[in-house]
Amino acid sequence: MNIILLSGGSGKRLWPLSNDIRSKQFIRMLSDEKGGFESMLGRVYRQISAVDAQARITIATGKKQVSLIKNQLGDRVSVCVEPCRRDTFPAICLAASFLRDVQGVGEDEAVVVCPVDPYVEASYFEALKEMAGMAQGGSANLYLMGIEPTYPSEKYGYIIPKSAERVSGVDTFREKPDVATAEKYIAQGALWNGGVFAFRLGYLLRKAHERLTFTDYQDLYARYAEMEKISFDYALAEREKEIRVLRFGGQWKDLGTWNTFSEAMADNVLGRAALNETCENTHVVNELNIPILCMGCSDMVIAASSDGILISDKEQSSYIKPYVEQIEQQVMYAEKSWGSFTVLDVQEDSLTIKIVLLPGHALHYHSHEHRDEVWTVMSGRGKAVIDGTERKVGPGDVISMPAGCRHTISADSELKVVEVQIGKDISVEDKCKHEL
Amino acid sequence: MNIILLSGGSGKRLWPLSNDIRSKQFIRMLSDEKGGFESMLGRVYRQISAVDAQARITIATGKKQVSLIKNQLGDRVSVCVEPCRRDTFPAICLAASFLRDVQGVGEDEAVVVCPVDPYVEASYFEALKEMAGMAQGGSANLYLMGIEPTYPSEKYGYIIPKSAERVSGVDTFREKPDVATAEKYIAQGALWNGGVFAFRLGYLLRKAHERLTFTDYQDLYARYAEMEKISFDYALAEREKEIRVLRFGGQWKDLGTWNTFSEAMADNVLGRAALNETCENTHVVNELNIPILCMGCSDMVIAASSDGILISDKEQSSYIKPYVEQIEQQVMYAEKSWGSFTVLDVQEDSLTIKIVLLPGHALHYHSHEHRDEVWTVMSGRGKAVIDGTERKVGPGDVISMPAGCRHTISADSELKVVEVQIGKDISVEDKCKHEL
Repeated sequence: MNIILLSGGSGKRLWPLSNDIRSKQFIRMLSDEKGGFESMLGRVYRQISAVDAQARITIATGKKQVSLIKNQLGDRVSVCVEPCRRDTFPAICLAASFLRDVQGVGEDEAVVVCPVDPYVEASYFEALKEMAGMAQGGSANLYLMGIEPTYPSEKYGYIIPKSAERVSGVDTFREKPDVATAEKYIAQGALWNGGVFAFRLGYLLRKAHERLTFTDYQDLYARYAEMEKISFDYALAEREKEIRVLRFGGQWKDLGTWNTFSEAMADNVLGRAALNETCENTHVVNELNIPILCMGCSDMVIAASSDGILISDKEQSSYIKPYVEQIEQQVMYAEKSWGSFTVLDVQEDSLTIKIVLLPGHALHYHSHEHRDEVWTVMSGRGKAVIDGTERKVGPGDVISMPAGCRHTISADSELKVVEVQIGKDISVEDKCKHEL
Repeated sequence: MNIILLSGGSGKRLWPLSNDIRSKQFIRMLSDEKGGFESMLGRVYRQISAVDAQARITIATGKKQVSLIKNQLGDRVSVCVEPCRRDTFPAICLAASFLRDVQGVGEDEAVVVCPVDPYVEASYFEALKEMAGMAQGGSANLYLMGIEPTYPSEKYGYIIPKSAERVSGVDTFREKPDVATAEKYIAQGALWNGGVFAFRLGYLLRKAHERLTFTDYQDLYARYAEMEKISFDYALAEREKEIRVLRFGGQWKDLGTWNTFSEAMADNVLGRAALNETCENTHVVNELNIPILCMGCSDMVIAASSDGILISDKEQSSYIKPYVEQIEQQVMYAEKSWGSFTVLDVQEDSLTIKIVLLPGHALHYHSHEHRDEVWTVMSGRGKAVIDGTERKVGPGDVISMPAGCRHTISADSELKVVEVQIGKDISVEDKCKHEL
């Protein structure tokens, strides 16, 4: 099976664990099969491989997420990166072109597109396989997944099928309705639009060419900004006559809010937290290394990370987005392809961060115009290159880098370093990369 | 007026802002008169000076609090330090002896003893002055303050006066009762025992000699451990026949729990926090430099510091102590006589802290046996002494101190330093002080 996983999202709704860099699909809070924790991305990737060990998985995403995806899945994963943000239709066209021109997938092969973050069981991926089979051999151009609704949600689009059969034609699509309208749709037999599409590669590429003429993947990539911002639903699904919907009644959850996310947690507490016996139906996720004590909390969700602390009634937590947008906070923690960084201290003329470099990885060779930096190695072994001169480093070693000095560090074993930045107007923009 | 302020307390009840070092009286959360914040200690000290500019104030406390008291009140304050923890009677005897032998107070002068943490107005200190006057000129040996109760509290001892007059004899004392018993006492005209005592210095010293024979303050200090652990109430007040109680009906609050403490806060929020419009009667104190967002919180108190995070229903917050005792957490922030330190990062074989040195102050000259240290100066100017060699330091300067190396640093202007400690079994015990 060829599968395109769409990985987008700005991640305000699961603040403070999600931020501009770490969208919700990257938060490692779900119990994996070995007693540890995995992210939605990790879970979906694992589940697809379990259902189809030969699956060719391509992740379609933006620039910001590439480091994180590689941090979580390793360099083996195939990533198709949008040069700028468009909408789902252009992103799927780019990924389709990537599949043909880079991966060598034939135009008669079926491709399934699926969001990266549904909380589902194996049956969902069995259904994807079935959809791929239908797209490959069936008569329709486009196959959708229709989720059997469990309540009249305002959050999803609805598909009204022509019949109650397992595979049916589509009568019409409906936008996100209010609750009363949703109830009417459901009475008419409507299904949630799960954002899953299956088609033959050639079909999609023809549709792409109707909107933009391009020669191949490289050409489309170069001219990507010319593509109109339009969703796959608007651009294609709602116009296609030869379309079928597969009814899916298995477990399907959208863990998009803290309220729904907490339902998927194996325990009430993740991280350092104690709830006294007067707490009820309260979930705590604590990524900080200080303890949380909850007393007399009912129906609450509490989430703490180096970006901030959320304390919310569970139902209220669905309305978080506008409040988070008002919070000005620099990113305090980020996972990168080479490891991670954590901001430890912010002063007017200095910034102190902790850098964790994974074995075999290195920072870019770079310099800063307006700040001096000092590295103190806490643990691990590696090599630093300072203005072209290489030296070995280990615990207790100190490297001073005045402004203008070119520097990098690489890890032989996992390397933990405290970096003190000193200067006026410290900014992530003040970084000049060099060839080593 | 000679006044002894008793400053004790382990400070579990206002966790995480109070800890083993920072008792509740040191937390700067009360609005001062200039739009800033002051601690209970700072407030009481200021209030006494306003009522009696000539007041001779002595703070009786334990070793752990000396640094903090001097940090908050400056070196001018007179502190009488217990060599070990006893109870209030020995502490008052030591302070009385300190007043006579170190401060030169005459035995016929009156002394007032008062807790360091009542939340009161000027009228309270006017009453103290009146009690001092009565002790000086009156016929009784001991004068107490009886607070007019506002509810049948289980938290206080009760004094049953002989009459309803403003100054009365004492019929009897009662231990902390249950609510029903407290109601009965109040019906009998009982008053709360406010822990305020006034007497002539010679009287108290005679009573001290009945329990331990000593020559002077130095001698008592040396033999302090021999004193029996006993409260002033048991040892003296409940046995004294010539005793009077002054009835006090002014504002008096014991800010000993988060529930009562939050009532004294001028605003619902102290520090970085946002409450959405669905929050009701909720107070937030945030000492962390990350934002807190509260949604749908009712009747809650939220307190965050580098020691931990409390999220509690207000009523439940009174029962915090046993839960806090179960939390194992090293002290992450402490104010010292020379400034403060904050733990930034804890690893298995390293610890990173931020040191803020106040101008004119210095660390002790010291060394460590089992760890290396590295200082990186973030801001400020000062001098470091390393194995006897002095050098000037400023922003960006780095000092490496291998185990065994003797070192100190002093601040010309406020100095901020990142200290990385590296070694196995890092402990505050591993410190050897030296003469400079």
